[in-house]
Amino acid sequence: MSSTAGQVIKCRAAVAWEAGKPLVMEEVEVAPPKAMEVRLKILYTSLCHTDVYFWEAKGQTPVFPRIFGHEAGGVVESVGEGVTDLSPGDHVLPIFMGECKECAHCKSQESNMCDLLRINTDRGVMISDGQSRFSINGKPIYHFLGTSTFSEYTVVHVGCVAKINPLAPLDKVCVISCGISTGYGAAVNVAKPPKGSTVAVFGLGAVGLAAAEGARASGASRIIGVDINPKRFEEAKKFGVTEFVNPADYDRPVQEVLAEMTNGGVDRSIECSGSTSAMISAFECVHDGWGVAVLVGVPHKDAVFKTHPVNFLVERTLKGTFYGNYKPRSDIPAVVEKYMAKELELEKFITHSVPFSEINKAFDYMLKGESLRCIIHMDG
Amino acid sequence: MSSTAGQVIKCRAAVAWEAGKPLVMEEVEVAPPKAMEVRLKILYTSLCHTDVYFWEAKGQTPVFPRIFGHEAGGVVESVGEGVTDLSPGDHVLPIFMGECKECAHCKSQESNMCDLLRINTDRGVMISDGQSRFSINGKPIYHFLGTSTFSEYTVVHVGCVAKINPLAPLDKVCVISCGISTGYGAAVNVAKPPKGSTVAVFGLGAVGLAAAEGARASGASRIIGVDINPKRFEEAKKFGVTEFVNPADYDRPVQEVLAEMTNGGVDRSIECSGSTSAMISAFECVHDGWGVAVLVGVPHKDAVFKTHPVNFLVERTLKGTFYGNYKPRSDIPAVVEKYMAKELELEKFITHSVPFSEINKAFDYMLKGESLRCIIHMDG
Repeated sequence: MSSTAGQVIKCRAAVAWEAGKPLVMEEVEVAPPKAMEVRLKILYTSLCHTDVYFWEAKGQTPVFPRIFGHEAGGVVESVGEGVTDLSPGDHVLPIFMGECKECAHCKSQESNMCDLLRINTDRGVMISDGQSRFSINGKPIYHFLGTSTFSEYTVVHVGCVAKINPLAPLDKVCVISCGISTGYGAAVNVAKPPKGSTVAVFGLGAVGLAAAEGARASGASRIIGVDINPKRFEEAKKFGVTEFVNPADYDRPVQEVLAEMTNGGVDRSIECSGSTSAMISAFECVHDGWGVAVLVGVPHKDAVFKTHPVNFLVERTLKGTFYGNYKPRSDIPAVVEKYMAKELELEKFITHSVPFSEINKAFDYMLKGESLRCIIHMDG
Repeated sequence: MSSTAGQVIKCRAAVAWEAGKPLVMEEVEVAPPKAMEVRLKILYTSLCHTDVYFWEAKGQTPVFPRIFGHEAGGVVESVGEGVTDLSPGDHVLPIFMGECKECAHCKSQESNMCDLLRINTDRGVMISDGQSRFSINGKPIYHFLGTSTFSEYTVVHVGCVAKINPLAPLDKVCVISCGISTGYGAAVNVAKPPKGSTVAVFGLGAVGLAAAEGARASGASRIIGVDINPKRFEEAKKFGVTEFVNPADYDRPVQEVLAEMTNGGVDRSIECSGSTSAMISAFECVHDGWGVAVLVGVPHKDAVFKTHPVNFLVERTLKGTFYGNYKPRSDIPAVVEKYMAKELELEKFITHSVPFSEINKAFDYMLKGESLRCIIHMDG
């Protein structure tokens, strides 16, 4: 039992007071975990585009003040009542998708959309009591994705915690807790490109590059990266991307360009940008007869996917996935082991690092398109 | 060699001179088959909703004068140059989907969308020379779906002919050549409902009922029929439908009704009506996490499928199929054998029969929603 167990912890957190404004380092109070909750000491966190997207709140419901952050590694500080499979000191990744292990989804081989703990971007409170565990002078600060890792301590539901090998370096494997698994899993678990196949990846941020890496690991022989930022291509080669298409270079839909390049269409496509037009292109660019398109990127809340139904009838498949269909508690420890066994390289995704006190720099790097992953060291 | 081989055959055909007007029995000239073509003597044909749809030409390109018909059984009268696997006298089903056996689709395990012979509803001529084989006093009459079975003789590409067991009764197995296989295959080959699962079938015509039959054969335990014609339910019970929903009975979207009936959604849905709103409902009614929706019905040419992309992201799958993913030459002889082995009952689909001279009655039965399949006897 740690000396802080059961006590309110005061610590630093980077608070987003309003949409699009720099985070402010504040002293926050972090309440002890309640039943089936765990309080974590975060050691490393990284910035994911989803944090930026909801911080900007342009296409999403604004929920402020809020502590963002959902890609992180840390150790268990204390556990609430009923938590039996985690103990203080355990090395863990907090994860925005939960796994209660009891519902129909958790019992299904196919789904990771846990009924109890599924992603809810509008929720800023804990599910047990509808309250926040964060406050400043008694005024609540909202959670984000059930994780809120831009705080030295955070409280999460036990179902959102993956217990991992304590030998794994948390400053590297923290990126497994969102983006890398999201892209890699979308390829290896959902798109499943056959050996020798052609795969298009839309959006060459960290998620898209992880999807490309997963396509390469699956044996795809052509991997076509699609992005409107031509600076991405050189870097993308390291992740298995063999060709590059910039939709801005053409005056016709990029799905037509891809169909011409591939004798009728790619075998698989993976959409990681969240743009509606990219989703439509990603679907329509797959080959009829056998093509499978997988949606990964988070859409605008008013987005509408539109296509002629004949595009389906000619035997195309469209499916979506959250978090690469990984179940956080059951599957993620094995993804960490893939890194330990050198089957999955994480270093090449990590382009920057900053001390926690300079977290706003991580936002700048991402907004300028300079970074893939910027690791934020919580002790700095 | 038959005495008519190489000669023009004069015979009766039911010609559609213009959209929506009764067919007219005419004497037509049927040219001999050219290279890789086969001339068939049609013995039985039946009316499928797709014939009616293109005859009405409301949502499709009008191509007239035309000989409709694509669900039939007959015998080979003569073969053109290069045809080695069929001989005069063979019992066959002409099929609107072709199989060249050479293209990437024919070589794929997953596709039946033959590059050479795929369905083209606007084409009214043979692919080899762009000409029709039908004429009246030298004026061409257009083909339909490469089959045009509302004629005592017709010419089809060899790739559109399934050679079947000569013991099979052609007045029964003729229905395998389109609708029954389309629905049954959509269930057993594409939707693949797990044992004990719940399946919704939209549109309870012959195709939808065949889909229900396929779902039952796959082990589904709840089969919910959705149709705006409540008269269909009593008959649907014979095909395994256990519950019935009429969207007109509700003032909210039927996908919400189905989700309430099934604790969140059905495991599989199969859309057989071709209505765009039914397609959207069929997709949105499947359970998140694992649901699969399959589109079968032919849409209006200006139809647009619309949904919020989050409906995909929550791990739903949408796919389409033509002809139940069966390859006509490779797979259909085995479907006929299923009938011969009493594993597939066809009699219950056959509700009416008429002599060829009264073919317009078959249209009336279908337009009134009275018939499932009306067999047209060509000798009458």
